Amino acid sequence: MHRIITIGREFGSGGRELGRRLAETLKIAYYDHEIIAEIARRTSLSEQYIQSVSERAPVFSFPIHTGRSFYPAPNPAFDQSLSVYREQSNILREMAEKSDCVIVGRCADYVLKDYHPFRIFVCANMESKMQRCRENAPEDEKLTDRELRQMIQSVDKRRAGYYSFYTGQNWGDRLNVDICINTSRMVIKEVVPAFARLFD
Amino acid sequence: MHRIITIGREFGSGGRELGRRLAETLKIAYYDHEIIAEIARRTSLSEQYIQSVSERAPVFSFPIHTGRSFYPAPNPAFDQSLSVYREQSNILREMAEKSDCVIVGRCADYVLKDYHPFRIFVCANMESKMQRCRENAPEDEKLTDRELRQMIQSVDKRRAGYYSFYTGQNWGDRLNVDICINTSRMVIKEVVPAFARLFD
Repeated sequence: MHRIITIGREFGSGGRELGRRLAETLKIAYYDHEIIAEIARRTSLSEQYIQSVSERAPVFSFPIHTGRSFYPAPNPAFDQSLSVYREQSNILREMAEKSDCVIVGRCADYVLKDYHPFRIFVCANMESKMQRCRENAPEDEKLTDRELRQMIQSVDKRRAGYYSFYTGQNWGDRLNVDICINTSRMVIKEVVPAFARLFD
Repeated sequence: MHRIITIGREFGSGGRELGRRLAETLKIAYYDHEIIAEIARRTSLSEQYIQSVSERAPVFSFPIHTGRSFYPAPNPAFDQSLSVYREQSNILREMAEKSDCVIVGRCADYVLKDYHPFRIFVCANMESKMQRCRENAPEDEKLTDRELRQMIQSVDKRRAGYYSFYTGQNWGDRLNVDICINTSRMVIKEVVPAFARLFD
């Protein structure tokens, strides 16, 4: 069975960088945006649309009811979110079958649980996440501190909701991962060689 | 400043073993029971008594009140718990001043925060903690599964209460530690060399 490493990460915690560097150090495949591109190819939905439903729990519109009867109304947006999730899960399993790899986000720890992945969760305090976002932001981004904080909270809330919707578990719960890394005081490229040793 | 590693740990998670092996690998001091012995030496309290108040939040008896007035009643047990904690904190600071070290439990991450320790928390699922307890138990121990489970829950609840009483923080909160290690699927002696690399 291949060596699968899954990475859950708070927005701005540097989890993606940690995953990419870990894959480089271990010389194994790294999957992140590639998954979106592959879903787009298979479903003929646009990458932009898939991105918009990706890592977001689907919104369920309640059915119309008249008097005492319920008529399940068609809910194409809800159904399509589930289809994207299903397709994504198929792709994750194919990737896990193909070779050793690092996979970022997408409930991969849960979807691939039969492959016994090594599950990493990456978090950081708000100050550190804001600083990292500032460093990586395009030059023309003009968010105030308050707006940036709200944006980070909103993305993390969405990811937690997505994870909980599809897995029934709490996102980042210490018993659902093997190690949880708080990057607030770390320089990621300096710690990756140590974590890579876990897979020697 | 010396390299200080603090280890918080759930009962049965193997945190103590991890700390001891880490100290051996890094060839630095390891403090655990030594702290109790040193407090006993300094306070002339018995090791047994110190052990009984150690990692346990003190119990506060409410003062007697007559009519509308409150008379703070003397509470020697409460005061002595605080004294033990104070003495313990002094000892931890002396240890941190003396040399690089690994310190297990005793809110060391909080007491030594000005030394910027590397803070590890070790946890595991109940099944794994029970198995480890069984492996390390004396041969004549005859706890049923239910009793063992209750004992583990009770020790962890006490440790959480102690930590929260003295630090005002949640025990094992992922943002109060640098890494949280779930040992449920790990063989501790196999992973220690990797974690030791964090301190190269």
